Formats: sequence, structure tokens, C-alpha cells
Amino acid sequence: MADGSIRKPRGDYGRMAEQRFEQISPADFFYRNRDIAGFSNPSRSLYMSVRELVENSLDACEVGRILPNIWIELTQFEEDSEKDVRVYRLVVKDNGIGVEAEQVPKAFGTILYGSKYGFKQSRGTFGVGGTMALLYGQITTNNPFRIVSSTGKKEIHEYRLMIDIVENKPKVLDHKVHPNKNGWHGTIVDYTLEADYTNSKSKIIEYLSKTAVINPHSNIVFLDPRGRLYVFRRVKETTPEPPREAKPHPLGVDVETINRLIANTRARDVVGFLTNEFQRVGRKTALEVLKLANIDPNTKVKHLTVDQVTALVEAIKSYGKFRAPDTSSLSPVGVEFIEAGIRAVYNPDFLHVVQRPPASYSGIPFIIEAAVAYGGNIPESEDIHLLRFANKIPLLYDERADVSWKVISERIDWNSYKVPKIKRLAVLTSICSPKVPYKTVGKEAISDRPEIERELTIAIRECARELRIYLSRIERGEAVKKRLNVYAKYLPKIAKFSAELAEKPVPDLRPIFAKLGLSEAVIKEAAAEEEAEAHELYGG
Amino acid sequence: MADGSIRKPRGDYGRMAEQRFEQISPADFFYRNRDIAGFSNPSRSLYMSVRELVENSLDACEVGRILPNIWIELTQFEEDSEKDVRVYRLVVKDNGIGVEAEQVPKAFGTILYGSKYGFKQSRGTFGVGGTMALLYGQITTNNPFRIVSSTGKKEIHEYRLMIDIVENKPKVLDHKVHPNKNGWHGTIVDYTLEADYTNSKSKIIEYLSKTAVINPHSNIVFLDPRGRLYVFRRVKETTPEPPREAKPHPLGVDVETINRLIANTRARDVVGFLTNEFQRVGRKTALEVLKLANIDPNTKVKHLTVDQVTALVEAIKSYGKFRAPDTSSLSPVGVEFIEAGIRAVYNPDFLHVVQRPPASYSGIPFIIEAAVAYGGNIPESEDIHLLRFANKIPLLYDERADVSWKVISERIDWNSYKVPKIKRLAVLTSICSPKVPYKTVGKEAISDRPEIERELTIAIRECARELRIYLSRIERGEAVKKRLNVYAKYLPKIAKFSAELAEKPVPDLRPIFAKLGLSEAVIKEAAAEEEAEAHELYGG
Repeated sequence: MADGSIRKPRGDYGRMAEQRFEQISPADFFYRNRDIAGFSNPSRSLYMSVRELVENSLDACEVGRILPNIWIELTQFEEDSEKDVRVYRLVVKDNGIGVEAEQVPKAFGTILYGSKYGFKQSRGTFGVGGTMALLYGQITTNNPFRIVSSTGKKEIHEYRLMIDIVENKPKVLDHKVHPNKNGWHGTIVDYTLEADYTNSKSKIIEYLSKTAVINPHSNIVFLDPRGRLYVFRRVKETTPEPPREAKPHPLGVDVETINRLIANTRARDVVGFLTNEFQRVGRKTALEVLKLANIDPNTKVKHLTVDQVTALVEAIKSYGKFRAPDTSSLSPVGVEFIEAGIRAVYNPDFLHVVQRPPASYSGIPFIIEAAVAYGGNIPESEDIHLLRFANKIPLLYDERADVSWKVISERIDWNSYKVPKIKRLAVLTSICSPKVPYKTVGKEAISDRPEIERELTIAIRECARELRIYLSRIERGEAVKKRLNVYAKYLPKIAKFSAELAEKPVPDLRPIFAKLGLSEAVIKEAAAEEEAEAHELYGG
Repeated sequence: MADGSIRKPRGDYGRMAEQRFEQISPADFFYRNRDIAGFSNPSRSLYMSVRELVENSLDACEVGRILPNIWIELTQFEEDSEKDVRVYRLVVKDNGIGVEAEQVPKAFGTILYGSKYGFKQSRGTFGVGGTMALLYGQITTNNPFRIVSSTGKKEIHEYRLMIDIVENKPKVLDHKVHPNKNGWHGTIVDYTLEADYTNSKSKIIEYLSKTAVINPHSNIVFLDPRGRLYVFRRVKETTPEPPREAKPHPLGVDVETINRLIANTRARDVVGFLTNEFQRVGRKTALEVLKLANIDPNTKVKHLTVDQVTALVEAIKSYGKFRAPDTSSLSPVGVEFIEAGIRAVYNPDFLHVVQRPPASYSGIPFIIEAAVAYGGNIPESEDIHLLRFANKIPLLYDERADVSWKVISERIDWNSYKVPKIKRLAVLTSICSPKVPYKTVGKEAISDRPEIERELTIAIRECARELRIYLSRIERGEAVKKRLNVYAKYLPKIAKFSAELAEKPVPDLRPIFAKLGLSEAVIKEAAAEEEAEAHELYGG
């Protein structure tokens, strides 16, 4: 083992062999690695900032069953500059439930501090995005940010804050309290950041318009730095059911979760613990699981040993008879909205939408929806146009790392559905779940959990089968036409060639072409093509 | 603004409008979101575990200029099971510089605690991977892990540890001290985890063999659970230059960094501060920058105001005359090793390797290397085989999210380099940098920083131009052959058709074919093909 020896370090290297260890805060981690949170350059960072704040606004309305009014204003902060990268001021205003005054500094000035760690469907998940947007603004412009919020009670609170990145905590520079005469509720986020609007404009507009399509109960208004107003008007006057928080399903649980539940439970014995703290566990199921784990049902839950907890998890995993997770809290987009959305954008010749029944991965429920569209305004391409949604937000970056891309490019053989190489094909996928397994903190790509991959494959195949029926109908005519073109191309040359060989006059081919149903135009075009090919190969 | 009103919540929903905020630790964050660190399923988690521990071992040897001996042993921990997912024991042993005894618990039991936060090239970067592997083992098996380490001094320390995930700190269950008679130095990590070797075996072997190719000074031995021994033997007896830590380049700096440097500097005035704490800043440059920022050069550095710091950063950004970052600390793979590696795997008919001169993004230096190989054992495919390396580690997952994929699929028009649709084409890319901008904590995909994308594009284009010259040489012959095949296919049918139309006997085509240089075999094959096509379209 020990045949490599530490060589005497020379010169500068002496310092290297001492390892200096240090601990960094989560804020410092994301400060150092902002690519990980999607803040990789001034254009994508602006897109991410808008996105994170709009999603927080939508969530803040949804939990209160409020019809969202979201106002986004981006203005140039510096004097006119010729560069694409400038300092902008971004203001996002919503009419959501607001944040309690004493929570404001931590909620906006601390990474990994949030209200969305529970087990329910929401757009935000990590407790990173909103604060990360503000942190990005701070490190690029060195200005504090302003948060105004009210829960609709007597006061409106206005804070000026900065983030202590090393300590991961807010610094309160100023706190004003205003009377709230009209009972306003909502939140205003107002800060400066270095950004590149020129190169992110199209993504931001695409993001907002797709968000509006899939959240038709929202008013979203965007005033851009050039003074253009983009209005995405509410088209539906009812709020969706807000997501409900659910107890964990036993299959989603590991020893760490069990230990946490044990620490907080009010149950006394293990049977009560299992039936109270989990969904889908009745007394009979609890007794069967405990028998499998070799644990006495009368054991006090707080007296369980480490080995017993391990045995309990093993028993849960091997039990195999739990009912599927409760899916009543899931809120999918709906076939009708997907259809309307795709028709509005692409007006396709063919469209088929599928909503799968609820499924689950590791005890976490999810629903997959998929659509396949063909023709219409879909741009012609060798690639498939993929539109992805997760918990009603569009995903625009890192498409190729997403499980949906894997499915459409590796699992589906489009050839076998008669789809040509160059095509006008769009595929839409949507997942909703209390826990979407994102690969990145930037929430752009979904990981290929086998259960999700399977559901996506089934849904898209079902759409593709309908597409094949549609394409078969038009295929035969086109194939016949193509074959005839070959004759149009070579017959005149061959005739000439044969005639010369036989020292005879070139025969009139028009009767043959007429019999084959070939028009003058097709024949001329084919001849020109053949001429060009020959020139390229032999001539020049 | 306030036209949406909070509706009276009914039933269960009443609870939802109260937002419960909570703060979670970094360990808890990665526990809840392990997909983000690459631990998304039992097979990929095993791959990630091996990878993170091997990279720590290579780094621990590199800083001490030690020829690495790395022993990896994976054994089945449970009795025989029919399932793919089982409990395994993983042991990784190295002869690196070891970890000081008092640092062991925190180094292995705390997320975001590490020795690699400095500005130098290393494989690990985040202070997450190693601990994450152990955390994954703990939550899937509930067992403590064992760490044995020595720095070569008189004692070997052996710890049994667990991680307190909520608090993000180690729990020491046991600590033994052994005499170190032979002066051994290194580290042993020993723990259990739930894993799927069946489905990760090929990735693990691929990872180890590519790592060995690119780190030819290493001995890597892997004993797999089936008792097979994989030995990747050292082929080079010298250690690479260990990476050096560099001062930051001004262009990589924002207000946060400046504030930290100010807090820690020994310099008194701003001129001394700029020249001491940054690379590439002499007295003249410092004075010019300060003039631009409108700061008196005699200002005491600790007296700088917030506005002055902002002005300083602005001045640095607009200065435009800094020399490029110091690249002496970079350690690229080298053309010779890349060539040898590719020849060993693919034995290609064509190979060209390019190493670009050093470049930088946001003040961080990097070097790009690229290779294009064609033919040989490269499997035939519509896709390009892409091999990616970063700081001398292979990247195997999330290829399509990587900037290299973007370049080869969007920036390079392979058509214009005469590359056919179905091809035997492999592209290798390698980046080395003190800070590789990964998109994910799992270190699989590199973000598309414009400077990196540009260097990759130039390097690959240069290789592709050489490839075009190679392919042009063989293209002409093939094109001529293809054109002749069209005659072989249609001439007999046309002759028959024309003859029938003219009510003459079918002419003997053999003289024509002979004149065209077509063999009997080609003619027969073409006829059969045409027959099959006709049948498919009209018959059946």
C-alpha cells in the first residue's frame, strides 16, 4: 500500500501539502457557484430573476385562492450605454397573501429558508431561487434591495435589506411601517442587478407567455426597458384548487425521515405512530408491517432502537401491499388547457393530448400529461419541438438533459410512426407532483426516475399511434409521386444514351410521361436537378 | 392592484394560507434533494459514490506529489438476494497525504466543509461529494461509517461516525488511535450503502478506465462484488506538477470578493491593496484604475465607503488593459496523452488533436483541448461519440446539457466538413481550470460560458478541417459509384418498358453496363432492391 512516498516539496509547493479546511454557508456556496442555480451569465441571470420572482408570486396567490395580478417592471438604471450588459432595476409586485413582517428579512435574505419544504405541489421548492435573485443583484451592483409586504392587516411593512453572504443572514438597513388603509395584501420586490436584456428578451417573453397559457386565471403585465407593455390577460375567472399538504406515503420514507417523525409525533405506541403519521396505513396494515419487522406492537415509539428503526424501514420496503399514494392533492394542467394552448401557438394539422392516471415514484405521487402536434405553424426541422412544463411552469433551458428529451429521442422510434426525417413535429410534456425531481437548483431539467420515464413513454406513444394513423393516410400519395420523379429524372438521359448507342433518333418520351402522369414542370425540374448533380461530380 | 381579494377559506384549506417558514441546513438540503448531487437512483448513486471518493483520493495524492495507489473494494453486505438493489459495503483506500486527526469528523461529516475552496485546479470543488456519498449510505442503511487516516506521523486515527443531518455536523461514535510504525499515510473510507451494481457496473468500469487513461501515473485497482479484479496499472512514473493556488485576477472579482479581501488584507492604502491582493496589478495599473474610480491613492483601504467599493469594481470592469490571467497553475492533459488514449480505445483511421492557448472567463483561466477521430473501432451511428474530461476526470452523464454537446451539435456544421449522416465519428473535449463552471453539484455538465464555447468551437473546427481533407480524398470515388448504381437500378426496367412501348425486343444492356464499369453483382443487387421497393408501394 505505502510504496508512494511524500517527496520533499520544493519552493512554492511547500504550502500545498497543508490542507486548509474551511466551512462555508449555503449563501456562500451559491455565491461561489451561481451556475448551479442557473445564474451563469447576465442574460440567463435576468431570465432566472424574473422567473423565480414570478413563481413566488403565483405560489403566494395560489395558497390564498387569489386571482393573481402580477406586475413586472424592468427599467434601465444607468445612463444610456452601448453595451448589452447594463444595470437594470427590476420590480415585481403581486397581490398574494404577503409575508408576515417579522419573517420578511429572513424569507428574502437567507438561503435555504422558506415556506415550501412541506409535502405539497408548489412552483418553488428549494428555498433558494428568490434569495438567489437578490443575492445576484447585490453582488453585481452593491445596492440594497427593497421589500414591501402586507398580509392585508393594518400595516404595510417596507424593508431595505442586504445579505450577509458569509453568515447567510439578512442585514436590515431600514424598516418603515405604513398604515394599510385599503386592506392591500401582496408583496413588492424591488432591486437592481447587472443584466443583459437584449439577449434574454425572447426567453423572458416566451416564459411569460407560456406561463400565462398554463395559468389562465392570471393577469401578468410586463413593462420592458424599451417602454413596451406586454399584457397577458386573465381568461379564466376561477382559481385552481390550492395544493394540499399530505402526510408522507410509507414508500417515500427512509431512516432519517422515520427518526424525524418519531421525534415530533404525539403517538405513544408504534401502531399509533404508523397510522397517524403516514397516509395509506390503517391498523391492520400497521400490525402486518410490525410483524414483518419483528417489533412488538405495544413498543413505545420513543423507545425504538436504531436496529428496530432500520428493521421497520426494511419491512416497509418489502411489505408490497400499500395502496398507491393519495393523489387528491395533485393539480394537473388538464387536456382542455393543453389543447387550447397548443392551438393558439401552432394551429397544427394534427393534435392529440393524453392525461395519464396518477402514478408514483418512491412514495411520491405524480401525473404525466403529453401532447403531440404535427404540421400547421410548427417550424420544419430535423428536431422535435419540445415544450416542457412542471407544476405549471414552463422549463426553457437544458432541454437535452431532461427525461422528456430522453424519451422522445431514445425511447420513441418516430420512424415506426411514419414520421419523416424533416418534419413539423411538436411534443408537449407536463408533470405535476409535490416533489418534482429536478436535476438542478435552477429547476430546468427533470431527472430520469424510471417511473416518470415509463409514464412519459406510454403517454407519448399513445399520441404517436394516433399520429401514425393520420400520417399513413397522406403517405401513399406522396410515395408514388416521389417514385415517378426518378423516372422523370433519368428517362430522357437514358433514352438519349440508348439512341446514340443504337445510332437511332431519340424517341419522343411525351407519350410515356403522359401515361405515367408526369407534368411538363416536374420533368423540367428533374432534368435541371440531374444536370446540376452531374456537374458537381464530373465537371467544374 | 388590489382587485383580487382573499376568499374565505373553506374546510381544510384554512391551514394553507398560514405560511410556515423554516430554515434547513445544507445537509438537510442535499438530503431532501439528492437528485441535485447526482444521487438519483441506486445505480447512479453507486457510480457517484465511487467517483467522489476516487477523486478525493487523486486530489489527496496530487497535492503531496505522491504516485497514487487507489484500492476500491465493493462487496455484498446482505445475504444473497435476487433483487438488483442490495446493500453493499464500499471501501476506498488511498496513499494520499491523509487528513489531520482533529479534522476527520468535520471533513467527512459536514456538508460544505472542505479544503478545496481555494483558487486552484482540483477535481473536487464543492465540499459536497464525499460527505454526500456517506450521507447517502447512512440514510439508506442506517449504519455509521468508518474513516481511517494518517498524515504519516506517529499515529493512525480510526473514527466511527454518523452525520446529524438536521444540524449538519458529525456525531463521533468511536475514536481509536493506533501506532503508525511504517509511516503510512493515506485515508480509508469504509461504509455501507444501498446500491444497484448490476446496472451501474458498466459506467463504473468506464469511469475507472477513462480516469486511468488520463491519469497515467496512477495505480487503480477495483475488486467487484463478483470477485473480479480490475487493475489499471500505472504507466508513467512521474507525478504531474501539483496545482498552485493563485491570487484572484481583477476581472474575476465582484463587490463581495473585494469586501472579503479588504477585511483580510494587511495592506494599508488602496494602492498596496490592489498590488498585493491581485495578480496582474502593478503600481502603474493600480494608479490608473484608482483614477478611473475617482479614488485618492492615499485612501486607507479600510476606510473605503460602500460607494467607493462599487466605483472600484466598475473601474476594474471598464479598465480593459489588464494582462490575461496567470496560467502557470493550469495542468492540461497534453496532446500526447490524448492521442495515446484515443488510439488505445478506438484505433481510428483519422485522428487530430488540438491544444488551445490559455484563455479566461471572468478572470478565471482555462485551457481547452479537443480531438476528432474517425473510423476504426468507433461504432457507426447518426450521433457523434463525445468524450468529455474536466480537470482530468471523465464526465459520463448529462452529456446533452454540456457546452461540448452544444458546440458539436449546434456550432459545427459537420455537413460542410464532408461528414456523412451515418458515421464513425468521435470527439474528445477537455477543460482544465481552477474553477470549472459546472451546471450541477454532481459535476456532470459544464455551462455554456461564451468564452468556453468559443474556445471549444475553434479547437473542434481546427480538427474538423483536417478531417475534411481526409474525407475529401475518399469521397469522390464513392460518389461516382453511387451515381452508377442508379443506372444499374433503372436502366433494365426502362429498356424493357421502352421496348414494349416500341413493340421491339428488349436490347442487350451488357455492353452499356460494361462501358459504365458496372459488375454483374452490382446490377443484380440493384434489381432486387428496385423489385422490393415496387412491391412495398404498389403490391402486397
